[in-house]
Amino acid sequence: MGTSLEPTHTELPARQAPHPDHADCRGVASVLSRVGDKWSVFVIMMLGDGPKRFNELKRMINGISQRMLTLTLRGLERDGLVTRTIFPTIPPRVDYELTDLGRGLQQPVKALGQWAMDHLAQIEAARTKFDQRNDG
Amino acid sequence: MGTSLEPTHTELPARQAPHPDHADCRGVASVLSRVGDKWSVFVIMMLGDGPKRFNELKRMINGISQRMLTLTLRGLERDGLVTRTIFPTIPPRVDYELTDLGRGLQQPVKALGQWAMDHLAQIEAARTKFDQRNDG
Repeated sequence: MGTSLEPTHTELPARQAPHPDHADCRGVASVLSRVGDKWSVFVIMMLGDGPKRFNELKRMINGISQRMLTLTLRGLERDGLVTRTIFPTIPPRVDYELTDLGRGLQQPVKALGQWAMDHLAQIEAARTKFDQRNDG
Repeated sequence: MGTSLEPTHTELPARQAPHPDHADCRGVASVLSRVGDKWSVFVIMMLGDGPKRFNELKRMINGISQRMLTLTLRGLERDGLVTRTIFPTIPPRVDYELTDLGRGLQQPVKALGQWAMDHLAQIEAARTKFDQRNDG
């Protein structure tokens, strides 16, 4: 029986051990979903060369609405990727700037964006082929 | 006045030139949205070490439903990232495998997933802080 003070470690069978890729699944998914949002990606890219004001960003990002830019910036601020600084001028000036965390995210996002650009034609050709095969 | 046969090039003012980041915006967004879908990312990761059958994938990816896995695989097949091979056994065996294109996508996706894992705690802390500031 052994001493009752000694803790008993029961190893789970290997096949029941959690898969390493499952660790932090939900958290990682929430980060990926940010990156899957094109507006967030565009804002992160546009802030790459320094702080910008709301209206500058709006002009730089074709097709984004006032409301969508507000929501996107709020989400990025909440994630700690962007800071919002209000200058007490008249009218008040609001600057958005990448944090160190946001700057760190730029590199993998850029690599992914580059991959997407480089392989877009291939992916679109695959889609057309797939759709033709499944329509006919 | 010059010769009328000579084409006249009128340069657009620089500020009206399309921003390079806008090129292929929609296409790139459609690739990013695939990467923003956690199930697609998990399937791409799981296929990294070779072909898998449907039920193997289902067992490996905690919490994915039959229907969601079917949809995810179909989307990846449509994008040309995964192939589906049917073996005429009884019952038929269906294997899913990364294409070269899919294998190429693994690297930037892994880099992003790694970044997400490495900075998850920082992002979650930022979210908590933001929510406390905006609730109080």
